[in-house]
Amino acid sequence: MKPLGPIPAGFAAINGELAIGGKPASHWVEEAGRTPLFVYSRERIEQRFAELRAAMPERLKVNYAIKANSFGPVLSLVSTLADGLDIASGGELEMVRATGFDLSRVSFAGPGKRDEELKAAIEAGVTLNLESENEAQRAIAIGGELGVTPRMAVRVNPDFELKGSGMKMGGGAKPFGIDAERVPALIRRILDAGCDFRGLHIFTGSQALSAEAVIDMQAKVLDCAHRLAVEADTSIPKLNMGGGYGIPYFPGDKPLDITAVGEALEQRFAELPDTLSQSELFIELGRYLVGEAGVYLTRIVDRKDSYGETYLVTDGGLHHQLAASGNFGTVVRRNYPVAIASRFTAEPVEEANVVGCLCTPLDRLADKAHLPRAEVGDLVAVFCAGAYGASASPSAFLGQGPAEEMLV
Amino acid sequence: MKPLGPIPAGFAAINGELAIGGKPASHWVEEAGRTPLFVYSRERIEQRFAELRAAMPERLKVNYAIKANSFGPVLSLVSTLADGLDIASGGELEMVRATGFDLSRVSFAGPGKRDEELKAAIEAGVTLNLESENEAQRAIAIGGELGVTPRMAVRVNPDFELKGSGMKMGGGAKPFGIDAERVPALIRRILDAGCDFRGLHIFTGSQALSAEAVIDMQAKVLDCAHRLAVEADTSIPKLNMGGGYGIPYFPGDKPLDITAVGEALEQRFAELPDTLSQSELFIELGRYLVGEAGVYLTRIVDRKDSYGETYLVTDGGLHHQLAASGNFGTVVRRNYPVAIASRFTAEPVEEANVVGCLCTPLDRLADKAHLPRAEVGDLVAVFCAGAYGASASPSAFLGQGPAEEMLV
Repeated sequence: MKPLGPIPAGFAAINGELAIGGKPASHWVEEAGRTPLFVYSRERIEQRFAELRAAMPERLKVNYAIKANSFGPVLSLVSTLADGLDIASGGELEMVRATGFDLSRVSFAGPGKRDEELKAAIEAGVTLNLESENEAQRAIAIGGELGVTPRMAVRVNPDFELKGSGMKMGGGAKPFGIDAERVPALIRRILDAGCDFRGLHIFTGSQALSAEAVIDMQAKVLDCAHRLAVEADTSIPKLNMGGGYGIPYFPGDKPLDITAVGEALEQRFAELPDTLSQSELFIELGRYLVGEAGVYLTRIVDRKDSYGETYLVTDGGLHHQLAASGNFGTVVRRNYPVAIASRFTAEPVEEANVVGCLCTPLDRLADKAHLPRAEVGDLVAVFCAGAYGASASPSAFLGQGPAEEMLV
Repeated sequence: MKPLGPIPAGFAAINGELAIGGKPASHWVEEAGRTPLFVYSRERIEQRFAELRAAMPERLKVNYAIKANSFGPVLSLVSTLADGLDIASGGELEMVRATGFDLSRVSFAGPGKRDEELKAAIEAGVTLNLESENEAQRAIAIGGELGVTPRMAVRVNPDFELKGSGMKMGGGAKPFGIDAERVPALIRRILDAGCDFRGLHIFTGSQALSAEAVIDMQAKVLDCAHRLAVEADTSIPKLNMGGGYGIPYFPGDKPLDITAVGEALEQRFAELPDTLSQSELFIELGRYLVGEAGVYLTRIVDRKDSYGETYLVTDGGLHHQLAASGNFGTVVRRNYPVAIASRFTAEPVEEANVVGCLCTPLDRLADKAHLPRAEVGDLVAVFCAGAYGASASPSAFLGQGPAEEMLV
């Protein structure tokens, strides 16, 4: 028997069935007309924002990194809740443009921006988080050609990391940002070129669950930003302090203590140096805002036994849930939170493997899980499906195609 | 410095540039109008089939598993070279239908076939490789409703595995096929139901490079098929012996010795028991037929240094090359064969990391590779991109979208 990850807060039952947004899972499947289906809960997203705002200093602004989930209705909802949006490609710029969001509150990070992406962003008034001196030079040249003053922030590759983070993006050689020691010179160049210097972006890692690690990282980010500002003899208009706030996916994971994080930030904000005292201060979150609000629903197509093990074969799989299958950024596969949605309150009585419909042994949704007895036709829920699910999975694999998505 | 995988045979240079199908890489990029771009070589695919046919017994038929690469022009080409096609979903059935291929030479495996997929396949005269007794029952019922006699083969989960294979699909509890010991009873049930019994499908693993392992596996497959036929008191019309023929991806990998495999098969075919002497005998290959014929071309957008390391940032990445990035079915990341296509004959002079344009540390195409000095604008080639590339990667990730594909 292998344990399952913890089911996020806020999911109750109606008539024994998993409820999302006040209706049973089967209701949404009926409305969508088919499985597999991602259901995102408006109420869970709003609740998450409310909890976060309550815990954080009033001064702190919250940006949404749309890469976590750019499904149109989710993006539209979040754009009414977030202070700004962060994009990572020209494609994402078009998605944001379609929502009507104020593009001056959008910033664009990413180490491989093409000239046409820089051009579109500069024309739109989007702030570029510059990833290299070359990119700065290209952007200045494109701004010149367009007759538009580019808005430029500098993405810093700091000399520290976010401890215990799922993905480290600072500390040592990285393709992201500009090594801290070279940043002051670049700031001077931007100012000398007459560009609109918007500040710094310091993103050190993602998916940390330790408040201590996040507090330590945020303190270092503020110190680093101050040091760079002093060296460049300027103040920082905006500071994107990065994200890193994780959510529990796996057995034993505990939620991040955002109250502790918020209190530490409040203290630091009370004693900011001159270089930062007038700054707009941001955090940039993706997964933390929407990850736990999404549920992936898939239907059991077959129930079979093989050499003593039970397999529940679903009509979904890794083509929509690459990370849950254990094939994206993880070395050892562990179970996500998974449940039989149509028997949500039933007692677990057997050990079963939940697999996808793909003809590959990689396509696993839960290994040796303790579950209620499920039959063909039952619905399986994979939780924590609100971020890096639909868009971060190979939906065309084996000719399957994308899942349905709905915000409810 | 980390070694790169071996570049497949058949790729020469023109004016110092990598040539594919008799033209330099930059020619195809110009024709496509953009990077990233998958270029598949018609000549390499035809050559591979010719070598395989020459090495294998004349009696052996070769099926193509379209999941490896279902890009329309590739599928059309391969459908003129292969004896049959194997599909894994209703979506793939529609792709094959579009080529005009004779659907009676198509078989459909996959553990999670939906009722509507079974219906479409039965109506089309496709052979079902049954994955469970339940599926057999559903198919018989659907055939009855349609008034069509279903063509049915049984996929066997054998009690042995393909040694050294990248992915094991036999030997122990598996979601694929029916445990060998239960197969004779199911064959009887199919015959008793008046269905068209087409034989057995025994697929034990993929991506093996040891001829000895493949020879051992094929011998066991023939023995297993015979044993099951005797127990079911029938002969086997068709036997799909599976695939498992691997290609070299990583440093130190050596090509599979297909001459040795073919000779061993010739010997076995000379002494087949009655149950198999009249059978059509197949192997089912995907990756082996098209994998080495494909090259992924991406352009360098930035060249940057970070704490002493050099990064070549491309406009491609894991959204098209998930497996090459080390994030699909591999535990330890190793380098695929990668080269600077636009300086294919230049001497390596530096150590560089080739990364994609995505804002994640997972997006790596080559780590600490020994390469010629490359600049912004140069083209990078990732080899072995003909199978499980475009369709097995999350192309929508970060709003990037799919790459171009062309058969040349």
